[in-house]
Amino acid sequence: MTGSGEHPAATVGPVRVVGTGLLGTSVGLALRAGGVDVVLADPSRTTVLLSRDVGAGRLPRADEAEPALVVVAAPPDVTGQVVLAELAAHPGAVVTDVASVKAPVAAEVAAGGGDLSRYVGSHPMAGAERSGPTAARPDLFAGRPWVVCAGSAEPASVLAVRALAVDVAATPVMLDAAEHDAAVALVSHLPQVAASLVAARLRDAPATALELAGQGLRDVTRIAASEPGLWTSILAANAGSVAPVLREVRRDLDEVIGALERAAVAGAEPAGVHGSLAGAIAAGNAGVGRIPGKHGGSHATYDVVTVLVPDRPGELGRLLVDMGHAGVNLEELAIDHAPRQAVGLASLSVLPGLGTTLEQELTARGWRVAG
Amino acid sequence: MTGSGEHPAATVGPVRVVGTGLLGTSVGLALRAGGVDVVLADPSRTTVLLSRDVGAGRLPRADEAEPALVVVAAPPDVTGQVVLAELAAHPGAVVTDVASVKAPVAAEVAAGGGDLSRYVGSHPMAGAERSGPTAARPDLFAGRPWVVCAGSAEPASVLAVRALAVDVAATPVMLDAAEHDAAVALVSHLPQVAASLVAARLRDAPATALELAGQGLRDVTRIAASEPGLWTSILAANAGSVAPVLREVRRDLDEVIGALERAAVAGAEPAGVHGSLAGAIAAGNAGVGRIPGKHGGSHATYDVVTVLVPDRPGELGRLLVDMGHAGVNLEELAIDHAPRQAVGLASLSVLPGLGTTLEQELTARGWRVAG
Repeated sequence: MTGSGEHPAATVGPVRVVGTGLLGTSVGLALRAGGVDVVLADPSRTTVLLSRDVGAGRLPRADEAEPALVVVAAPPDVTGQVVLAELAAHPGAVVTDVASVKAPVAAEVAAGGGDLSRYVGSHPMAGAERSGPTAARPDLFAGRPWVVCAGSAEPASVLAVRALAVDVAATPVMLDAAEHDAAVALVSHLPQVAASLVAARLRDAPATALELAGQGLRDVTRIAASEPGLWTSILAANAGSVAPVLREVRRDLDEVIGALERAAVAGAEPAGVHGSLAGAIAAGNAGVGRIPGKHGGSHATYDVVTVLVPDRPGELGRLLVDMGHAGVNLEELAIDHAPRQAVGLASLSVLPGLGTTLEQELTARGWRVAG
Repeated sequence: MTGSGEHPAATVGPVRVVGTGLLGTSVGLALRAGGVDVVLADPSRTTVLLSRDVGAGRLPRADEAEPALVVVAAPPDVTGQVVLAELAAHPGAVVTDVASVKAPVAAEVAAGGGDLSRYVGSHPMAGAERSGPTAARPDLFAGRPWVVCAGSAEPASVLAVRALAVDVAATPVMLDAAEHDAAVALVSHLPQVAASLVAARLRDAPATALELAGQGLRDVTRIAASEPGLWTSILAANAGSVAPVLREVRRDLDEVIGALERAAVAGAEPAGVHGSLAGAIAAGNAGVGRIPGKHGGSHATYDVVTVLVPDRPGELGRLLVDMGHAGVNLEELAIDHAPRQAVGLASLSVLPGLGTTLEQELTARGWRVAG
């Protein structure tokens, strides 16, 4: 089990958390669970009091001691300036930030004459659909990668931020700021833009069309529900890394559109159409196969067993308990909705080779295995 | 409970199934479960024997009776010709097909002089990652929409195909062929292209970047694992409806790229950048909110309770059983992976208003609710 509070904290307090929204408050909750002294600050009095009330830390005292570590969890577009202010205000402290874009912040800190030996950029790969201190939770970072960008910082400064990541139960990942920004452009910012653009096409779709929506559309567009304000700042801040990726996507999209237009005009399939379309889908096959699964392998390699589950409270639970009795662990679970019907299809992904065993075990327990 | 075989079949046999892959064999299995006489045909002897052996029906006899209904489940690009051949070979039979594109097939049948009074196009909105008779299952269509395109068919012909849909436990949806093709371009073909184009960008991504992949990327790219051959035929056949949608996406993509390039050059955020980016994300918010949830509402309206689940066999099951004991039904379930950690985060979506109750019930049962 991971989770904060289950090992002694390596982080030395007091830790000053500047910006007590979802991330700042979650850092506070996780550190408090480890017994670390956390001091909260936020331009909004309401927000900082809310953060204190949920248990993320305390307000500064009149004779407040100098912090050993400052965690800046401000909006991306003001992070650089807040980091500079904190470096100046607390000359003995290591300062880190959790903004989702790293090179621009580092450049701003350098340009502002900040002490780079004490600044370490970081980015916890965690978030939630909701924002604000009330959405915060001590487990927000549990088991997630926490990117640490050393830059020109002293080893001791880097160590302090690595310790912070470990204390909130995250997995520290050392990356160069530019590497990080290029990586998130691919694995986070590109999918967000794609999901939003696909979902945008549904605004004026006839209701009859939306009635035909399946799990595929739901999966592709789930993150399209994200907050415009936050994502505007993120995309603008990482524009230099996101734009080239989107231009590559546009190049591929143009090729697909060209092939479709040739097919539509010809009413048949002239040479090149199949090649272009099959190439685009095959390229996707190759790319998705590279996404690491829970165990570092590709999730495409799991065995999948599909079971018919009556849509009654506890039925899915009963299925997964039987699965547990069979000694087979669940790697991934997808539920296929049956609109207006009292039935669901649960697709159970298990490690390769365990599919047949699971199928037999579940059938023996009276489940309708559907392939 | 739905599922075939639980109500007397309205379909009159013998039903001739032409093409015994995933869909044809699943139709056979579902009809056989309802006691309907099913005759199987496929250009591949191996495939038809496999289909018979899994119980989808029988082979034609020497003195085979004329079928009342013919179901053509051939690849999209040959469907029109097969429908024409079946209309000619069986002058007393209603003929339907299950191709995922409808107007081009209808046009081909009309152009070929087929008897349109006996032809009814249909499209079951169901599928699977795998293909072939061995992937088939009687529950494949359970609770899924089954689009029926009447065209110029006689009422009796339409009724026969609606009865078929009901007998395989699907929900018949009457649509004009052109409406259908425009609808699937939006809710099925567009997401497929988008998922493939995003996944394609991962082919040459550094492993360190892929290590940062979260659930968002996994969701957006899941269907990118689809079969290139099948999708090439589908996209080419529906080119006329898909191309315009993709051109709209390209227009929006161009605007996002333009805004990012202005932001990157300016190193800041000149006028118009925020508007363009926020507009794109907000449009996505509006679109995704229109996707009907399991109960006809938007899935964005569910209450979500997130619980920390130890990564041991049966733990998730134990959670969902406790949920059942609490009398709360699960609407949607998402599992957030914790790479290289013995913990998972289960996000339980329940009907609005039930979130607080569930949170209390689960906490009382010793679960760590994370917000």
